[in-house]
Amino acid sequence: MSSDSSTNQQWGGRFAEPTDAFVQRFTASVDFDQRMFRQDIAGSKAHAKMLAKVGVLTEEECDQIHQGLTQIEGEIERGEFAWSVELEDVHMNIEARLTQLIGITGKKLHTGRSRNDQVATDIRLYLRDEIDNIEQELQRLQTGLLDLAEREAETIMPGFTHLQTAQPVTFGHHLLAWFEMLTRDADRLRDCRKRLNQSPLGAAALAGTSYPIDRAYSAELLGFSKPTENSLDSVSDRDFAIEFCAFSSLLLTHLSRASEELVLWTSAQFDFIELPDRFCTGSSIMPQKKNPDVPELVRGKTGRINGHLIALLTLMKSQPLAYNKDNQEDKEPLFDAIDTVKDCLRAFADMIPAIRSKKDSMYEAAKRGYATATDLADYLVCKGLPFRDAHEVVGRSVAFALEKNVDLSELTLEQLQQFSDIISEDVFDVLTLEGSVAARNHFGGTAPEQVKLAVKRAREALA
Amino acid sequence: MSSDSSTNQQWGGRFAEPTDAFVQRFTASVDFDQRMFRQDIAGSKAHAKMLAKVGVLTEEECDQIHQGLTQIEGEIERGEFAWSVELEDVHMNIEARLTQLIGITGKKLHTGRSRNDQVATDIRLYLRDEIDNIEQELQRLQTGLLDLAEREAETIMPGFTHLQTAQPVTFGHHLLAWFEMLTRDADRLRDCRKRLNQSPLGAAALAGTSYPIDRAYSAELLGFSKPTENSLDSVSDRDFAIEFCAFSSLLLTHLSRASEELVLWTSAQFDFIELPDRFCTGSSIMPQKKNPDVPELVRGKTGRINGHLIALLTLMKSQPLAYNKDNQEDKEPLFDAIDTVKDCLRAFADMIPAIRSKKDSMYEAAKRGYATATDLADYLVCKGLPFRDAHEVVGRSVAFALEKNVDLSELTLEQLQQFSDIISEDVFDVLTLEGSVAARNHFGGTAPEQVKLAVKRAREALA
Amino acid sequence: MSSDSSTNQQWGGRFAEPTDAFVQRFTASVDFDQRMFRQDIAGSKAHAKMLAKVGVLTEEECDQIHQGLTQIEGEIERGEFAWSVELEDVHMNIEARLTQLIGITGKKLHTGRSRNDQVATDIRLYLRDEIDNIEQELQRLQTGLLDLAEREAETIMPGFTHLQTAQPVTFGHHLLAWFEMLTRDADRLRDCRKRLNQSPLGAAALAGTSYPIDRAYSAELLGFSKPTENSLDSVSDRDFAIEFCAFSSLLLTHLSRASEELVLWTSAQFDFIELPDRFCTGSSIMPQKKNPDVPELVRGKTGRINGHLIALLTLMKSQPLAYNKDNQEDKEPLFDAIDTVKDCLRAFADMIPAIRSKKDSMYEAAKRGYATATDLADYLVCKGLPFRDAHEVVGRSVAFALEKNVDLSELTLEQLQQFSDIISEDVFDVLTLEGSVAARNHFGGTAPEQVKLAVKRAREALA
Amino acid sequence: MSSDSSTNQQWGGRFAEPTDAFVQRFTASVDFDQRMFRQDIAGSKAHAKMLAKVGVLTEEECDQIHQGLTQIEGEIERGEFAWSVELEDVHMNIEARLTQLIGITGKKLHTGRSRNDQVATDIRLYLRDEIDNIEQELQRLQTGLLDLAEREAETIMPGFTHLQTAQPVTFGHHLLAWFEMLTRDADRLRDCRKRLNQSPLGAAALAGTSYPIDRAYSAELLGFSKPTENSLDSVSDRDFAIEFCAFSSLLLTHLSRASEELVLWTSAQFDFIELPDRFCTGSSIMPQKKNPDVPELVRGKTGRINGHLIALLTLMKSQPLAYNKDNQEDKEPLFDAIDTVKDCLRAFADMIPAIRSKKDSMYEAAKRGYATATDLADYLVCKGLPFRDAHEVVGRSVAFALEKNVDLSELTLEQLQQFSDIISEDVFDVLTLEGSVAARNHFGGTAPEQVKLAVKRAREALA
Repeated sequence: MSSDSSTNQQWGGRFAEPTDAFVQRFTASVDFDQRMFRQDIAGSKAHAKMLAKVGVLTEEECDQIHQGLTQIEGEIERGEFAWSVELEDVHMNIEARLTQLIGITGKKLHTGRSRNDQVATDIRLYLRDEIDNIEQELQRLQTGLLDLAEREAETIMPGFTHLQTAQPVTFGHHLLAWFEMLTRDADRLRDCRKRLNQSPLGAAALAGTSYPIDRAYSAELLGFSKPTENSLDSVSDRDFAIEFCAFSSLLLTHLSRASEELVLWTSAQFDFIELPDRFCTGSSIMPQKKNPDVPELVRGKTGRINGHLIALLTLMKSQPLAYNKDNQEDKEPLFDAIDTVKDCLRAFADMIPAIRSKKDSMYEAAKRGYATATDLADYLVCKGLPFRDAHEVVGRSVAFALEKNVDLSELTLEQLQQFSDIISEDVFDVLTLEGSVAARNHFGGTAPEQVKLAVKRAREALA
Repeated sequence: MSSDSSTNQQWGGRFAEPTDAFVQRFTASVDFDQRMFRQDIAGSKAHAKMLAKVGVLTEEECDQIHQGLTQIEGEIERGEFAWSVELEDVHMNIEARLTQLIGITGKKLHTGRSRNDQVATDIRLYLRDEIDNIEQELQRLQTGLLDLAEREAETIMPGFTHLQTAQPVTFGHHLLAWFEMLTRDADRLRDCRKRLNQSPLGAAALAGTSYPIDRAYSAELLGFSKPTENSLDSVSDRDFAIEFCAFSSLLLTHLSRASEELVLWTSAQFDFIELPDRFCTGSSIMPQKKNPDVPELVRGKTGRINGHLIALLTLMKSQPLAYNKDNQEDKEPLFDAIDTVKDCLRAFADMIPAIRSKKDSMYEAAKRGYATATDLADYLVCKGLPFRDAHEVVGRSVAFALEKNVDLSELTLEQLQQFSDIISEDVFDVLTLEGSVAARNHFGGTAPEQVKLAVKRAREALA
Repeated sequence: MSSDSSTNQQWGGRFAEPTDAFVQRFTASVDFDQRMFRQDIAGSKAHAKMLAKVGVLTEEECDQIHQGLTQIEGEIERGEFAWSVELEDVHMNIEARLTQLIGITGKKLHTGRSRNDQVATDIRLYLRDEIDNIEQELQRLQTGLLDLAEREAETIMPGFTHLQTAQPVTFGHHLLAWFEMLTRDADRLRDCRKRLNQSPLGAAALAGTSYPIDRAYSAELLGFSKPTENSLDSVSDRDFAIEFCAFSSLLLTHLSRASEELVLWTSAQFDFIELPDRFCTGSSIMPQKKNPDVPELVRGKTGRINGHLIALLTLMKSQPLAYNKDNQEDKEPLFDAIDTVKDCLRAFADMIPAIRSKKDSMYEAAKRGYATATDLADYLVCKGLPFRDAHEVVGRSVAFALEKNVDLSELTLEQLQQFSDIISEDVFDVLTLEGSVAARNHFGGTAPEQVKLAVKRAREALA
Repeated sequence: MSSDSSTNQQWGGRFAEPTDAFVQRFTASVDFDQRMFRQDIAGSKAHAKMLAKVGVLTEEECDQIHQGLTQIEGEIERGEFAWSVELEDVHMNIEARLTQLIGITGKKLHTGRSRNDQVATDIRLYLRDEIDNIEQELQRLQTGLLDLAEREAETIMPGFTHLQTAQPVTFGHHLLAWFEMLTRDADRLRDCRKRLNQSPLGAAALAGTSYPIDRAYSAELLGFSKPTENSLDSVSDRDFAIEFCAFSSLLLTHLSRASEELVLWTSAQFDFIELPDRFCTGSSIMPQKKNPDVPELVRGKTGRINGHLIALLTLMKSQPLAYNKDNQEDKEPLFDAIDTVKDCLRAFADMIPAIRSKKDSMYEAAKRGYATATDLADYLVCKGLPFRDAHEVVGRSVAFALEKNVDLSELTLEQLQQFSDIISEDVFDVLTLEGSVAARNHFGGTAPEQVKLAVKRAREALA
């Protein structure tokens, strides 16, 4: 039995005085680690079953332990469990209660393990469960985006670079850009899950144990793909928490970008979309106000997640092997990252399907700013004009249109031919917003046809 | 009355549907901002008094409001107050209760202010109070360091560079290095307090208010040095929170450095000090273990604080004026930074005075590694030897001593004179550890005399 | 002479093999620290003068050293100096050249100091010089803002919260919000300078030196306010670099907020201002494009600075005393932060005075969105109406105006009186944009009168 | 031809004044992006070949372009190319030279692309090449670790938790813990490469192009697995840079942990290993000094990488689609991260094989601290003693040994049997350090046999 650092009653012998009361509170983790109770119990059950398999526990002892743990799980779920700060953490709280319930056999549970491998196992199990929840919510959001993108496959809006009108795009195409970001996030999440899904159980305090344990068996019972390779690494590794936070930072970065656009688009100046009232708040005095609180708050939460990522990286920097108390600081950032990611995804997954585009307003904005000037130049180049001449023709046409205060597409053929006689009737196919977007008809382009194909591919990939 | 974004019942008119239940929880802040209730009430009392002074409220109304608020403060302190997530935040919870208690007059309290300037006021008041608490704890820690440094002014230990033995120093001198770091921290804390101590009250939603308010008066009532200069800036500025976190990051960086050394020094390999048992924990199985949990945990908490700093910087990046919902994310990082700083300072202030130095062990370590080689070279240069020759003499002396497996100070005068005949009896004054530290007898040097003088200066500066 | 870690030729004796060629390049700093050559030379001159004063050097030796160093400074300035990676850093390069020029006396310069205190001195001097440059540029930007704010003191624009039209403000008032942010930055910069301006010279390798040095004298020669208090702290402290980066992060955060608004305002959707062409770039094909590159790039550089802050905090975390090689990593982040801050300030200081407001466009935007609804409610409350009734009156008035598609100020008195008969002719004083801003006529409010007063106060404070 | 934002000569028409000279320097990127010249040329060649395939260029034009680009590549490699800040970036510099060399055909190269997709392509190609270099260096380091671990499979050292002696481990086992960290890093690196390996070429400015391009073909020519799915996302996505920095942060975190241990182990206090002289530096005056510069510097560089990660995350936060000038700030952090990672890996890969363990010193340290107390307890539990009793027996045995100042293994059987009569001769198999490590003989345990098996598995996985 190799448990490292434990409550006073267990290691009182060497110590001349009890732990300072403030220190006890300062160093306890039960306030925040109790949320892993299900994983702690599942881990203990698997450990007990493995100990029985290798003969360290009898089948009867193992059954007793399982029954006791099941009872404790019920007590916690029903809110009847009395958590104690004196017992430091979720592990000691549950073990102490187990011994209370089933006597000395409860103490045998800790044979061949230590809190160092126990907590490493619990966090991995907990994070794995939450990754599965997050993956579902991410998929719900992605599905909502695809539905909306499909509905808006032909809606024209201005495409921006430098927040200046650049070229017309379809709203559906824009939404699919968000979808792509999330696709990479989902991919990274799966990679993170794959890497964390190994069992540290059996690493004990740091060196493994002298009991004849079967690590592969307990790993299998807990759904891990295999036991971890090295005991020292197992108790000190927190890569999975950092990798999850890195995933989260990128996800929130993407959501912050979408949020920024939602906030812009609901402003009076853009007026591209309407967010459902139930996602906004108003003002007690300004009846005109309808504030896009949800995207603003999600945007703000990006900072929180970047902060957690830095917290964990700073935490692990320069730590010598194996377990150090510093590592207790891994949980709060990780847990808050999990909660934040779930909440933000839920908020977005609920909100996206309810976005209503203001098509006329988008269309008008796209018409402003000679967004099809590029198309005219491309048209001339296709007709054989060298680039330099084409650019000059477009420049003069735009100047002329500016003077008349009309769009390029509103010039007559005669007016356009003033600038180049190779322009013919078919120019209007490319000069209109519809013509411009339709022309970008290649893989990944903004043409409605491509948007619909992209949605189709994406649905298949999601499924 | 210019309150921005408020509960549904107050702005229901424009809205076609109630706020989504999840969104309500997602956007509410009462769970974490209720801790500012005292400041919220103090701010409201000052605001009411100002409104009475300028004639917007009658004295009677002001009294009613004060009495109501006093009653609410008592209810909250006694745990009798029913916080409601529907009422979003601490401000609305208290205001709603006030109206319940004193009727329509309660609603008049919000005249000429908005939640935007109200929350800005509350956070500043809250942070100011906590800065004062932190300053006290910091001073307690510094005093403990001075006491210990004085006791250890003559204790010799190895001074390290690159964690390699460099030159002997006194333990008191080493402790004063920590003291200096904290002195700069205290200085930064005072600067932060100075800058935050201005009253945003009266900035209202963003533009000020049309009521004939007297901002200087409410500022004075709340102990602010003056009202803030610009209303737009007032409701959007969170510099003070970032500056406090920057202070905290540096403080924790310093504590992490001291913690690292405490952990090293309690290892079997260094064995320089003993930490009191009540700051350590043991192991249920390894009776030899006594883990320095407190410094380890403090070292780990550095990451948390750096994370909060990044969270706030990321939050504020690129935010257009004036108030945005993003800003609700300012509180949790700030509050946790405050709590962490207070806890870490308390842990250190309790622990430092109880450190017991192991003088013999320190002394032995200092003797290892030819730590006085520099002194021999300096001695030779003082006697007129050019540097190159001095260095060669020392090099050969060390090689000789290495061969004999003795320290330089253990060579005889004859042996030393083999390498240079200008060496005379007085060489031993500089070759001993005592001689070496005593020789660094200038302002800021490690000589015991200087350490005592430094302690004296520091005590005067602290007082 | 206590120099720690030096080139091979100087410490070859103990070493069985030369430094690995890659390691030499990996560990050398001369590529980036040579920019401190002026400070290194100034520091050496002061050190030599102090050594002469206390009798360690003769006046003649001191003169020789001064002449040699002056010659080297000229060589470097003229680009004639041959920097060598083998000589590791700026210090050794200059010292080696000095010895080449003046012989053995050059070697005496290093008496009583070490590269550890030398580099600490150099960085402080370098940063101090650059802080002075930055302070000037900051003041130039602030002056430009005041000039523009004064010119735009009566220009009306919409004030936003949540990027939704909230209440009308004056453009001058908005600009003064930026000014306030910079005022705090300037204040923090001065505090940083004050704290760094102490002389580490004399701390030597870590413990001070046995030579009879006069640290106060060399401090005075270099314009430092005093010598640092503790030698161990002196060679390991990098607080000043972190504090400067924290200042820089806040400054860039402020510039990023102004940049975000400049980018928004130059978009076709806002169209509030025009940036001078010379601060923008165009597109080779889209003649309509004029991209606000400068604010975009400044906004982007915020990340870089936050990164440097984290780099330095991570660097110093958990470092035991005194000097460790890790600290060589302090320079590049600091230098790049200095350069970036100077460039961004210069770009802004050049650009701000050239901003041209589009007053009509701003005014029209302010009229949209019933921005004076708050004023109507305030008006009614002033006339004695209880808040609830006032809010209802405004609500119904806005609904009526929405239906007529006119602003509140465009309703007739009769129409307004439908909703409350206490409304009289003077209501239009508050309903117009001019009336609304004029009414916020208190310290810090948006009224043109207040803006002009604020500019006046600010000019006095700057001077 | 849809190039966004370009040099003055190309978009002068709309602009009333030339770009400000400072602004030109401030916004130019050629100083740092010229390192991508090979990728820029490879991308252009593939683009030209694709244009020829779809008939936009003739075969002859394509050949001309290829020849011109090949010549330019040679010029750059030979240092004969004249980079110009006026031409802003690597792309324009090369294109301008191409036109100089081959005339108007050079201008046709930019047909159907924009600098927005061009730079996105270049960075991906550049990073992909460097990832391949990094993977090789990582593998070299891992191989070195395996070799050393195998040699040290039976070397016993103390295993630490909380930097307190916990249980004996083998040095080989400890080294394999480092190996495991790097294995996860290598895995993450491959995932990053997989995700970045898609071709943005053809996304043009943001919306795709109206030319009949074949994106799959140019993707194939460049070795990309496929074209990116969405044009807007393609020009604005920088996930790959962030993901690479996240990989780098974790890698450096791991190297910082190893570095910390190397620094500890070379201290006089630990004295566990000797680093080869060529990786260390000495001191000009202290002949005893041999500083572990390389691990110290690597440890310090962790901060730099964490900083770059934060720089990029902050950069991308809240950016609206599609390309913004902010993104120019992506390159310097990424390039420096690449360089730093390569250098640190090279330094470690060179240094690790040359580490010499000091076996006696390690062994002695392991004997101190009753490191086998856990083994005695486990022994008693195996013999049937309930845990409580076992713990008490061990406690009393340790107390007895402490009094005698001997290790547990140095007690006689009789002495041990005083505390429990179930102890028999076989106890010494577990009480010795050799017995203790040999007993941890399960998958992932520290037993020499397991270490050798782990090395074997690792070699197979690497190959």
